[in-house]
Amino acid sequence: MQASYYEGNRAISTGASVPQTPEPGEVRIEVAYCGICGTDLHIYLGHMDKRVQMPQIMGHEMSGVIAELGAGVTGWQVGDRVVVRPLAPCGTCPACQAGHAHICYNLKFLGIDTPGALQGSWTVPATTLHAIPAHLPLDKAAMIEPLAVACHDVRLGEVRPGEHVVVIGGGPIGALVALVAQEAGAKVLLSEVSPFRVNLAREIGLDAVNPTETDLAALVNERTGGAGADVVFEVSGSAAGAAVMTDLARSRGRIVIVAIFAEAPPVNLHRFFWRELKLCGARVYEPEDFEKAIALAASDALPLDRLISAKVPLADLGSILHQIATDPQLMKVLIKTGE
Amino acid sequence: MQASYYEGNRAISTGASVPQTPEPGEVRIEVAYCGICGTDLHIYLGHMDKRVQMPQIMGHEMSGVIAELGAGVTGWQVGDRVVVRPLAPCGTCPACQAGHAHICYNLKFLGIDTPGALQGSWTVPATTLHAIPAHLPLDKAAMIEPLAVACHDVRLGEVRPGEHVVVIGGGPIGALVALVAQEAGAKVLLSEVSPFRVNLAREIGLDAVNPTETDLAALVNERTGGAGADVVFEVSGSAAGAAVMTDLARSRGRIVIVAIFAEAPPVNLHRFFWRELKLCGARVYEPEDFEKAIALAASDALPLDRLISAKVPLADLGSILHQIATDPQLMKVLIKTGE
Repeated sequence: MQASYYEGNRAISTGASVPQTPEPGEVRIEVAYCGICGTDLHIYLGHMDKRVQMPQIMGHEMSGVIAELGAGVTGWQVGDRVVVRPLAPCGTCPACQAGHAHICYNLKFLGIDTPGALQGSWTVPATTLHAIPAHLPLDKAAMIEPLAVACHDVRLGEVRPGEHVVVIGGGPIGALVALVAQEAGAKVLLSEVSPFRVNLAREIGLDAVNPTETDLAALVNERTGGAGADVVFEVSGSAAGAAVMTDLARSRGRIVIVAIFAEAPPVNLHRFFWRELKLCGARVYEPEDFEKAIALAASDALPLDRLISAKVPLADLGSILHQIATDPQLMKVLIKTGE
Repeated sequence: MQASYYEGNRAISTGASVPQTPEPGEVRIEVAYCGICGTDLHIYLGHMDKRVQMPQIMGHEMSGVIAELGAGVTGWQVGDRVVVRPLAPCGTCPACQAGHAHICYNLKFLGIDTPGALQGSWTVPATTLHAIPAHLPLDKAAMIEPLAVACHDVRLGEVRPGEHVVVIGGGPIGALVALVAQEAGAKVLLSEVSPFRVNLAREIGLDAVNPTETDLAALVNERTGGAGADVVFEVSGSAAGAAVMTDLARSRGRIVIVAIFAEAPPVNLHRFFWRELKLCGARVYEPEDFEKAIALAASDALPLDRLISAKVPLADLGSILHQIATDPQLMKVLIKTGE
């Protein structure tokens, strides 16, 4: 079996890996596909060198088949098709005790704080597994993890049918948030500065505009009779997004922070006061979000295939990461870990 | 009868005023007391010259007795003791139609957008009236309007008994928010940089610290077993307050923006993501907040008297505004409008 290793300084090597025998409570999965997350790109670019342990096997957006069960694992069998919810909470911190284990104060993220899924075989706690239906292709199943993020975001945004939703940022997560909100019955407008991504969004049935060409706030006001949007998702992580988000929301409208902001941008707190706006952060997912994502993927309600730009073998991880870092023409890239 | 007029450029004049006969649906009130709001200070300092119509009669934190009824007014009698909820919503905008009339997109604020209560006699729509109990002194009743602000803030913050609450900013509104939250059963910590206000807060039974002397985040962590506060109220309107608020809240903790921020400060949106924090703005009040404030004032549960620093005649408005603008040793000042 093979694994890919981040060696630091944008260097990726591929080499042999030894399948890790599952400890009690663990399972070993033969990985089928593993998507490249924005976080993996951050690791590749060296932004997370203090957190990862080089050589780091990255990857967590995966699908696969159970190959081996550790002692005491019940409810699972060799051959089961699965995805992994890659979170290992401590169970004892204040967040865990408050029922927010997914944002545990000591959270270990599998594939960042532990070896990840960009290898032929991945050994993880059985508590992280979710079963996927027999008819769901394994490439599409590798989209379930980012789709679960979008389901979490839309759930925390309390999106209701008929509501006006604006999604700022049309990368893979932004597009998925828009698709999930639209599937929930909302009227969705996606704002994205990349012409390629605007076109792709339109091709998959989303209403998308480029805010450098269109006055977003004026458009939202026009469409909502001057009220403003019910829910705004900030998925761009940009100062421009943080600036416009408060202009878009109606009285007591909700803003959901999905993006990871590297710096603290100016935020119009007066507008929060004036319109009694609400804001919440949304991070990763809870088990119900994974179940919702699996149901959506299995129902074929969303054009997930169209968000997959390429499927490449493990040996090409380094070159494709270089391409992702420089080319905005890519959405989700899947790695075929068995090849 | 007398009225005080803001003439621009920190000039206040006092002169005769003609009682305004109530139109249909209006009542004329003999004003007893009128508190000076931070907004009145802003008007005095010239910050709102574009909004007010000079000469402007300011004031809206009042108590009084009905002196005259306009045609068609039912449910009220001459001699009734009242306070005024000084909001005139349009009734037709998206916010009004959504049930948020108190933050109407075309809201008129009585005493800012219309003549105010710093006169012997004030004529207002009967729909703005709230009755006050016979035993509640009229000076204390002039505290009901700011107390209703605090009741609104605590209600929107969803403060529950036993929760840890931090209030950033210990002026009149911050102190009232702290008192209302404490009365609701929360464990309240008030953060205030003025030694005078810290001492006053302690004298009236609040737990108060000076954040320039005490590490606020460390103290909150110590008191909450590392969890963080359940609710944080930002009442300072300072960049320092906006910076520290995100450090204080627990996973999914709530932050309430009470202050009016003149500029958009940097806000740690990453912390919102990381801890799934929630934030909401809270502006003025709804009718139920006034009823709650009247009940609290009438019950003697709060040391409202201790927040009244001075009671001065209408003729002294100019000098006391000058003093408030330069002296942090004052909390709430009431004007005896009949003198």
